[in-house]
Amino acid sequence: MATTDNLEPLEKLADMFRKLGGIGKKTAEKYAHSILNLSEEDAYEFARAIVEAKTEIKRCSVCCNITTDEECRICSDDERDKSVICVVEDPRAVDAIEKTRQFRGTYHVLHGVISPMKGITPDKLTIKELLERLNSSEIKEVILATNPTVEGEATAMYIARLISPLGIKVSRIANGVPVGGDLEYADEVTLRRAIEGRYTVS
Amino acid sequence: MATTDNLEPLEKLADMFRKLGGIGKKTAEKYAHSILNLSEEDAYEFARAIVEAKTEIKRCSVCCNITTDEECRICSDDERDKSVICVVEDPRAVDAIEKTRQFRGTYHVLHGVISPMKGITPDKLTIKELLERLNSSEIKEVILATNPTVEGEATAMYIARLISPLGIKVSRIANGVPVGGDLEYADEVTLRRAIEGRYTVS
Repeated sequence: MATTDNLEPLEKLADMFRKLGGIGKKTAEKYAHSILNLSEEDAYEFARAIVEAKTEIKRCSVCCNITTDEECRICSDDERDKSVICVVEDPRAVDAIEKTRQFRGTYHVLHGVISPMKGITPDKLTIKELLERLNSSEIKEVILATNPTVEGEATAMYIARLISPLGIKVSRIANGVPVGGDLEYADEVTLRRAIEGRYTVS
Repeated sequence: MATTDNLEPLEKLADMFRKLGGIGKKTAEKYAHSILNLSEEDAYEFARAIVEAKTEIKRCSVCCNITTDEECRICSDDERDKSVICVVEDPRAVDAIEKTRQFRGTYHVLHGVISPMKGITPDKLTIKELLERLNSSEIKEVILATNPTVEGEATAMYIARLISPLGIKVSRIANGVPVGGDLEYADEVTLRRAIEGRYTVS
């Protein structure tokens, strides 16, 4: 029994919300309805904001972090130590570590973690770009700062094994970060201790 | 200290997500980042879906439910009892009640509840349209089916007081619906009992 009209545009919109990940059916429907309750102006602005963000924000040609330029602010900063690379899962982890004001090296943003269950294989991440970076410039240390989750640990170990033959020091941030949590939600002191207490992997 | 580039488009997008209501700062940022991780095609499709939903979906000229036509499927159905109006908060409540196959009357969708805290005054809802409907056609009963929350109850009582002088029977769905919950999440049997057990308000 059709309860209401052909509301395909609404269903389509809910489907798009589900693509953002971690959003269930009911929540997606709620968000789609919320769009209808926006003013016409706000709805158009929302659509425009999506296109603009997607168009204007690119990946840094060096570290793959998000940027509006060819190179991000950190990679183009002469005062940063280019011989140390901190590998993180996403741009929000960069922001979190930057807030500690502890780390003066550069980053490499993987844009995810290896997760066979979700179909995320190593080639979907920026691991290839990281290896190219290690081969083409003088790198002294790679700090693996993926989240202390099962997938984050596995990704760190996977990358450590790849780098090991290159003779570059590889370290992993200490478990000062609460296990099972997300780097983004860690407080600054905990993150600072995690960077200080990093141990050599290979 | 600026940690990354001028990422205004991303902040703007996060702000738009927050306008959907019930989305905090961190979650809005997560969603904005998720947009960046969509394929270009999906991002454009998302933007288009917002504009299409907003453009194609209107409010029924009779009951204010969402529809792609002038009148929704229920209001334009000759087999529905036009003398009984079930007043609900939103279109999803209409869907929930329709699924019980118990109710053969029509609806009136308020598109919210009175909430002075959130700046939602009675004039922001479709109460005026409801009163016009009661004045212009033969209505025997108005069933108030707003959610059994503090705001839903207050809105029901507000509408009951407005209708009382018109000499129309006003009822409220029974508290079979779990108090504090949301109509949309009630199971069909509970909703059916709630409609059966409705009591006269005035």
